[in-house]
Amino acid sequence: MAEPRKILLGEDELPSAWFNIVPSMPTRPGPYLHPQTREPIGPEALAPLFPMALIGQEVTTDEWIDIPGPVLDTYKLWRPTPLVRALDLERALGTPARIWYKYEGGSPAGSHKPNTAVAQAYYNKAEGVARLSTETGAGQWGSALAFACARFGLECKVYMVRASYDGKPYRRSLMETWGASVIPSPSQETNAGRAVLAADPDSPGSLGIAISEAVEEAASRKDTNYSLGSVLNHVLLHQTVIGLEAKKQFEKIGEYPDVILAACGGGSNFGGIAFPFFADKAAGKKVRLVAVEPTSCPTLTKGRYAYDFGDAVGLTPLMKMYTLGHDFMPPGIHAGGLRYHGDSPLVSQLCHEGLIEAVAVAQLSTFEAGVTFARAEGLDIARGLIHAALRSGAPGIYIVAPFNRADLAAELVRFVREEWKA
Amino acid sequence: MAEPRKILLGEDELPSAWFNIVPSMPTRPGPYLHPQTREPIGPEALAPLFPMALIGQEVTTDEWIDIPGPVLDTYKLWRPTPLVRALDLERALGTPARIWYKYEGGSPAGSHKPNTAVAQAYYNKAEGVARLSTETGAGQWGSALAFACARFGLECKVYMVRASYDGKPYRRSLMETWGASVIPSPSQETNAGRAVLAADPDSPGSLGIAISEAVEEAASRKDTNYSLGSVLNHVLLHQTVIGLEAKKQFEKIGEYPDVILAACGGGSNFGGIAFPFFADKAAGKKVRLVAVEPTSCPTLTKGRYAYDFGDAVGLTPLMKMYTLGHDFMPPGIHAGGLRYHGDSPLVSQLCHEGLIEAVAVAQLSTFEAGVTFARAEGLDIARGLIHAALRSGAPGIYIVAPFNRADLAAELVRFVREEWKA
Repeated sequence: MAEPRKILLGEDELPSAWFNIVPSMPTRPGPYLHPQTREPIGPEALAPLFPMALIGQEVTTDEWIDIPGPVLDTYKLWRPTPLVRALDLERALGTPARIWYKYEGGSPAGSHKPNTAVAQAYYNKAEGVARLSTETGAGQWGSALAFACARFGLECKVYMVRASYDGKPYRRSLMETWGASVIPSPSQETNAGRAVLAADPDSPGSLGIAISEAVEEAASRKDTNYSLGSVLNHVLLHQTVIGLEAKKQFEKIGEYPDVILAACGGGSNFGGIAFPFFADKAAGKKVRLVAVEPTSCPTLTKGRYAYDFGDAVGLTPLMKMYTLGHDFMPPGIHAGGLRYHGDSPLVSQLCHEGLIEAVAVAQLSTFEAGVTFARAEGLDIARGLIHAALRSGAPGIYIVAPFNRADLAAELVRFVREEWKA
Repeated sequence: MAEPRKILLGEDELPSAWFNIVPSMPTRPGPYLHPQTREPIGPEALAPLFPMALIGQEVTTDEWIDIPGPVLDTYKLWRPTPLVRALDLERALGTPARIWYKYEGGSPAGSHKPNTAVAQAYYNKAEGVARLSTETGAGQWGSALAFACARFGLECKVYMVRASYDGKPYRRSLMETWGASVIPSPSQETNAGRAVLAADPDSPGSLGIAISEAVEEAASRKDTNYSLGSVLNHVLLHQTVIGLEAKKQFEKIGEYPDVILAACGGGSNFGGIAFPFFADKAAGKKVRLVAVEPTSCPTLTKGRYAYDFGDAVGLTPLMKMYTLGHDFMPPGIHAGGLRYHGDSPLVSQLCHEGLIEAVAVAQLSTFEAGVTFARAEGLDIARGLIHAALRSGAPGIYIVAPFNRADLAAELVRFVREEWKA
């Protein structure tokens, strides 16, 4: 048989627990602070927004968290996902590097986001919550949560960043097919939205504003919890199923990556693929973990490492993270999902301590690389498919974890061209 | 281990040959006729449009056709595809039926269409053709051919039915990302297009008109061949990779389907999944093969079985098939890909001889069923994901072969509700 293009796992090889990076970190993460008092908060402060199971996962120091049966059962709709060799991209770039990407685009919502959406919907349902509110930028997260809520019988309300709401009608109809109700943000339905519209009636919106609206709705309604698609510890925890599968897949072929590249907006994509490898790195293994972000929203590469709000208005607890300021209004770049002012506190801390790397990529080279990738590998970033990369042994293996995040393809192409010339 | 949700095959289990149904048919298909003389045509009449390898496949009586290495190599980007158990749909319908669907939505273009697009691009390239012209309705076929042309270094020109061109800008940008040039049909670039526009400047277009334009361009340019996404024998031949895989997958679990349901527009989806099972049926096995079409374009259920042109203007050879008349202008239903006046000659003949069944489903029940399927199984028909169905043993197994063809979901839901009540 020829060299395989894909490494598959059976359903019985699906990881049965998520990996918590905290015990592997040299320093324990700091607490969240109350938005008014700036004192460390306890679990009860988060209880109006999240179920206790998720609050527990936010602060746990257990290394492994069992994945509940109904979540595993839903994962099996599309998981385990393939690890695919980008043979044609290697040829197109003329590199001796071995490039692999972890393909998450086959999920019902077309991205990695359902990995945590399903878990969040499950835990909320288990604690008797009837309704979830959330925000969405490009539409990937809103789609994922709408899908998950349909699975577990929850109502779902999505505040969609207006620029995406206007530009992506099919994303909206996808969410509505799953039964969600979708409105453009900023909206007239919340104090946060009305305040923004009063200052700028034509505001294209931002993730930060949409988060304010969704949080305000959840905080003011007893039947409604809030759900976030990235940034928080429990979200990244659920995404580690990606990296855990990838590790098993590399084991099958007796390889180990040298570099993991992943797009990083709020951090869940990067954390999902990279954290399980970080444990090996912490134990002395040589592996580079590289987070890739857009130059137009350069959180890790140009932000301050400081306590800041997670939303635009200042309703959420303060988190220590790289931030461009919670009132940062990013330019209207195409990658709507990458326009967040902050970043995952866990990713931020690892970056601050020099344990991972971060690079920023400009939009034009992003599109160019996305087209290169699409023509070589047949995966089109416009459909939501470019991901992350890893490299192993000389001359190297990469993983690309495809979403609609072409900045990753740009960095992958640059990296391979500059560092692994044939 | 729990009952599996998916049956997977390894790359080494990918079929190495396509299955030709002709030797299994009780009657040999009739010849194609010249559009002017109405005499049977020989291979030379098709040579301005197709490479000799495909003309040979159009008329061959060999039962197996080897799949060329470069085609297999490209198939491995996403094949073999999973056979998925629709457990949640079964529960939602309260049926004891075992429902399986063959999931073709993970291909680069999001449908089954690349199975033949890749083969057609390969054979054209091998015979020195530089450029392909084609038409597309909903955009699935145009995307598939654009992808295939990018793989094999061919130029690609797509005439896209105007209704879809206006309504689906993302499909267009997908094709352009792969390097294709896309124009709305009817266009000013061909005699066929100009004639239609002269009579109706606001014509929303149809597949028949777009085919006329693409054929006219190929016939008038030495460097350009024509490529068709359905209807023809060689197209259905290439699609049999779907059914061949499904048979292997059922063998793995020791089951055999009772009923295969598949959406049928031009016939390539239906033929792809059903033809390999027809061979067993011809040998005495009990299996029902059901083609599902829209009531608004009821070719198999209300058409005449007669010789007719494949396009609107009358440029193509005449084929014996069920037809609504080559000048049939279907209503502007949402499923743009199902608005073709004719049907595959092979499928038509099997239907005429009572060897397969055909049913028509109305648009509203289609949408309702699509939503039922999406909420139960997480696959959204608006993204292009409802497929075909098979049933085995009592109380039965179905296969659904998902595309953006909700009529199939409608028939599946009706069939299960009426015939397999719990």
